[in-house]
Amino acid sequence: MSKHSGKHAGKHARKYPDLTDPPEQERRPLSELLRLPAGAVDLASIPTDATPGFPGRGKADAEEVAADLRPELDEQQERLFATGRSTPDTAPKVLLVLQGMDTSGKGGVVRHAIGMVDPQGVDITSFKAPTKTELAHHFLWRIERALPGPGMIGVFDRSHYEDVLIVRVRDLVPEAEWSGRYDEINAWEEQLVASGTTVVKCFLHVSHDEQRERLLARLDDPTKYWKYNPGDVDERELWPAYTQAYEAALERCSTQHAPWFVVPADRKWYRNWAVAQLLAEHLRGLDLQWPAADFDVTTEQARVTAS
Amino acid sequence: MSKHSGKHAGKHARKYPDLTDPPEQERRPLSELLRLPAGAVDLASIPTDATPGFPGRGKADAEEVAADLRPELDEQQERLFATGRSTPDTAPKVLLVLQGMDTSGKGGVVRHAIGMVDPQGVDITSFKAPTKTELAHHFLWRIERALPGPGMIGVFDRSHYEDVLIVRVRDLVPEAEWSGRYDEINAWEEQLVASGTTVVKCFLHVSHDEQRERLLARLDDPTKYWKYNPGDVDERELWPAYTQAYEAALERCSTQHAPWFVVPADRKWYRNWAVAQLLAEHLRGLDLQWPAADFDVTTEQARVTAS
Repeated sequence: MSKHSGKHAGKHARKYPDLTDPPEQERRPLSELLRLPAGAVDLASIPTDATPGFPGRGKADAEEVAADLRPELDEQQERLFATGRSTPDTAPKVLLVLQGMDTSGKGGVVRHAIGMVDPQGVDITSFKAPTKTELAHHFLWRIERALPGPGMIGVFDRSHYEDVLIVRVRDLVPEAEWSGRYDEINAWEEQLVASGTTVVKCFLHVSHDEQRERLLARLDDPTKYWKYNPGDVDERELWPAYTQAYEAALERCSTQHAPWFVVPADRKWYRNWAVAQLLAEHLRGLDLQWPAADFDVTTEQARVTAS
Repeated sequence: MSKHSGKHAGKHARKYPDLTDPPEQERRPLSELLRLPAGAVDLASIPTDATPGFPGRGKADAEEVAADLRPELDEQQERLFATGRSTPDTAPKVLLVLQGMDTSGKGGVVRHAIGMVDPQGVDITSFKAPTKTELAHHFLWRIERALPGPGMIGVFDRSHYEDVLIVRVRDLVPEAEWSGRYDEINAWEEQLVASGTTVVKCFLHVSHDEQRERLLARLDDPTKYWKYNPGDVDERELWPAYTQAYEAALERCSTQHAPWFVVPADRKWYRNWAVAQLLAEHLRGLDLQWPAADFDVTTEQARVTAS
């Protein structure tokens, strides 16, 4: 079966033209546009309110653009899931890692981007402060246990990166310990990728001003009080230290096998679309096929008909 | 805050009239209409293609009816989740149990009904044949481990009921063992409900003829081959034995604290709506409120503004 056959083949062909077409900005894969370039990272120099690669004019088109993406994302996820069921030993796995300052929209991405696909094929883990048991283990222990199985899309809302972010900013372990973790993470992710997991790491890049607006919005709406915590302001005071910690993590852990994508996140509609699009592009890259029948179709049709 | 305040208050008020209104069939809660009556269960006497309580004319309206339900279901789930975050020790939990013959649409319900809400607040477990480790434990051991946490909606695609269904039909344990399980299940579910979990058990009731059509449809479409297994026909040969086992499970385990709902499942659009509606009604019954602020709003507004 060809790469473009399937339920929405016509649609794919139309929406995702061959890359030999003129290299218009909109037609370059988003994973090229958002991939963190090699070298020193200066987050202040990366815009938080840009909308690179968005195939519409702006917010007014966002719903339609998302609706256009959904059938492909949905089908790609179903192919992945089907492969996981048919050939679990060799089926790929996908891991989406979401990181970002408070209010950057990790939860919103889960709701709106991950919400586009069958919830059955998704395994979401929201990492909180580690428990006593988790602290008694290596920092990757709890991460390892949450990895997606064959054919699944795992989603990490926060992740092992907290072990070089809040841990570094808040001095939760000595520098001698956290400073070795960048290399540990790289080695671990490399092995993860080698064993068949596609890792898509998204940093949701929100501005200091936009965070203030979002915190105020939570305080303005009684249906959002539960999302607010006075501790958020204390964390906000540490914005420069967090920025520095993020820059180090992005710079040191954006590798060939598992690069970081920096997603401008001041515009929620762009952020949600961008993560969904990145996911779709990575799924497309797996060239997933509908599993072939491992039975004789005609024989089975006769058996079912007679039953 | 009143029961109907919130993001979609106006909509709720319109769609879910006071029950003192004239008792038209469409206005009775679906949980009344589909609740298994006490007494002997004869599945043959319960229609598989009926559409009780559906607030539209039929399939042509199904999309619109689902779209009408979604905002309430979505908000109720978010209130549940918010409560779980704010007061985990006392927050309710919800468990949706899906059972039914092959092709009855357990997966379809997860995709279409559960897919209406934020995937973050949902914890789906698909129970397969037990592993060696699971078999070494009491049959409820693996079930217990998959229960939803505070504020979460757990979804069981198959469940502990398999331990009185396939186990009984296939003689996987001696009758002396499985025959005691009905009472064990009732006692266990009673304790589960007493500790704050609302249990919604749905039997997706599909006809023998409709199952044949659905199996043939899988064999007609290469994108569905992966859903077909020649063993499905062997299971189908045991239809009468499964029917008997289901009748026993429904009859013996439909209790005051955790009744069974029989959902006619020959029409997919009805089945998906009905389970979403049952879930919405149970969430509504919890009278969930947005958590109050446990901080001083004005103080925090000043802190954020100054930050």
